[in-house]
Amino acid sequence: MKPPAREPIALIGRLDAGESAAWLSALRAAMPDETIESAKALLAGQTAARVRLAIVANPDPDEVRRFAGLQWIHSVWAGVEGLLADPILAALPVVRLIDPELARTMAEAVLAWTLYLHREMPAYRQAQQISTWRPLPYRPPASRRVGLLGTGEMGRRAAASLTAAGFPVTGWRRRPGAVPGLDCRSGEAGLVEVVSRSDILVVLLPLTPATRHLVNRSLLARLPAGASLINFGRGGLVNDDDLLAALDSGRLDHAVLDVFETEPLPAASPFWQHPRVTVLPHISASSTVATAAAIVADNVRHWRESGKLPLVVDPTIGY
Amino acid sequence: MKPPAREPIALIGRLDAGESAAWLSALRAAMPDETIESAKALLAGQTAARVRLAIVANPDPDEVRRFAGLQWIHSVWAGVEGLLADPILAALPVVRLIDPELARTMAEAVLAWTLYLHREMPAYRQAQQISTWRPLPYRPPASRRVGLLGTGEMGRRAAASLTAAGFPVTGWRRRPGAVPGLDCRSGEAGLVEVVSRSDILVVLLPLTPATRHLVNRSLLARLPAGASLINFGRGGLVNDDDLLAALDSGRLDHAVLDVFETEPLPAASPFWQHPRVTVLPHISASSTVATAAAIVADNVRHWRESGKLPLVVDPTIGY
Repeated sequence: MKPPAREPIALIGRLDAGESAAWLSALRAAMPDETIESAKALLAGQTAARVRLAIVANPDPDEVRRFAGLQWIHSVWAGVEGLLADPILAALPVVRLIDPELARTMAEAVLAWTLYLHREMPAYRQAQQISTWRPLPYRPPASRRVGLLGTGEMGRRAAASLTAAGFPVTGWRRRPGAVPGLDCRSGEAGLVEVVSRSDILVVLLPLTPATRHLVNRSLLARLPAGASLINFGRGGLVNDDDLLAALDSGRLDHAVLDVFETEPLPAASPFWQHPRVTVLPHISASSTVATAAAIVADNVRHWRESGKLPLVVDPTIGY
Repeated sequence: MKPPAREPIALIGRLDAGESAAWLSALRAAMPDETIESAKALLAGQTAARVRLAIVANPDPDEVRRFAGLQWIHSVWAGVEGLLADPILAALPVVRLIDPELARTMAEAVLAWTLYLHREMPAYRQAQQISTWRPLPYRPPASRRVGLLGTGEMGRRAAASLTAAGFPVTGWRRRPGAVPGLDCRSGEAGLVEVVSRSDILVVLLPLTPATRHLVNRSLLARLPAGASLINFGRGGLVNDDDLLAALDSGRLDHAVLDVFETEPLPAASPFWQHPRVTVLPHISASSTVATAAAIVADNVRHWRESGKLPLVVDPTIGY
């Protein structure tokens, strides 16, 4: 007797044709026993109502809601604030991507742009623009204190890389808890303590109601004079007006920004041409299709075999 | 019976007043039993003829030659090609600075600017200048082959940092010999082999008659298309015209240059405003006065006690 045919899995996302084809191809290769179709193809056919699982990449919530039989959602990204913001979708279990390769790439980015600030690359770039030879005194990394907001998988790997490079690192997490191998604070008082001694402040937090605009005027005022900021978390973690004011006053020396409230960053944004800002197009860490597909496939296989979902996001905290 | 008074030690260098004062202060603190004076002060007094040791920092050879009783010269820098180029001074034993802190700083610089190229910072900078959001595909470090010309103390530490960051590294040294922990080639054939598979070529060689203009048209033509160059050795290692031709043809994607035939780099140099060149003002690694003074002091103490010189530079090879 043949087992009952499995229902199809939907791929839903704001993807261009090339991205969609790349994801379908990688997911099908990683799950040869499954039928995986784009939302559009499924909605045009007869099987959309049977779909229990959607694999999503920055989906339009309206499109997700058209799959009325959904039991859970697997994001191919680590940040899921868009799903949780939708009142209907937030009721479904959401699994986010926890990808060691993503954490490695993020840790590499944190090290690369910390060294960019540490070795004065913005100042040397400005000197080059005016054909000026201006060596700056070298400061050893031991004198460059790094504060790391966010101690998840990415934060922990970033801390290890920075420590190996000689930077003294202090971590901060919202809720109390020890992090092996990392000097760590938590809570409001801990945040003030970490920020007030961070020559370079690295933001790797998830965006949740509790972290929105965490980096605001009062927090920026706590930084030592001449400190720098790296935001590789989410644009909404930072109050842009407060950041611009801190940069314009010279209190903050430089900001490396990879994430923004609106992406792509609009052409009219003052960040683009600000001499104290490095704008990056959300490239600090991105899922590679192949490694992400393999992780999703493992989770789907486990669900088929056991009926159990992988670790789901706690909607009350957002990760 | 009192021991005979020690003769003074001369500090000779093209240093401004602040640099001279910093070196004198650090050297005197590290060697409280010695009398250390600037060349100018000694030549104005009665004791210049008794001086046996000169501590030098980019000295004017004419000034060094006025100390007729010199027995040896200790450079506070690692590169000593200027001393060896002088026919009279080259006959004296020359000791160069071998400073673990200098090697650490250089390894940090090699990692920092390799990550600068690896994470596409020049391209993102250019996109920002025209307010353009243009994410580039991420390539893992395993696909970014680094060739390292020069496997001395600095090269070996740089190789270890790059390997830890995930880059496949191949070293090259002029003369045959194994380097622990590093896949290494030597000789002419080895050079061609290393260069032809280097996506990023890092030059850390000393400048000697055998290495002058080693990076020339024929070597640059061996690089894979789209490769990049980092020169942290000496300006004379590279033929500037050949480098500019390789950059202008687009064969070479980018050059990070910290050292030049003439320093400071003249305002008329085409490197300053070249879109494919990052100009740095000789800052990849510089001796810190304190660590260098401690190393010189150890060598001087050993000489006073044993009568023996530290490891001297072999003038036939230049290091």
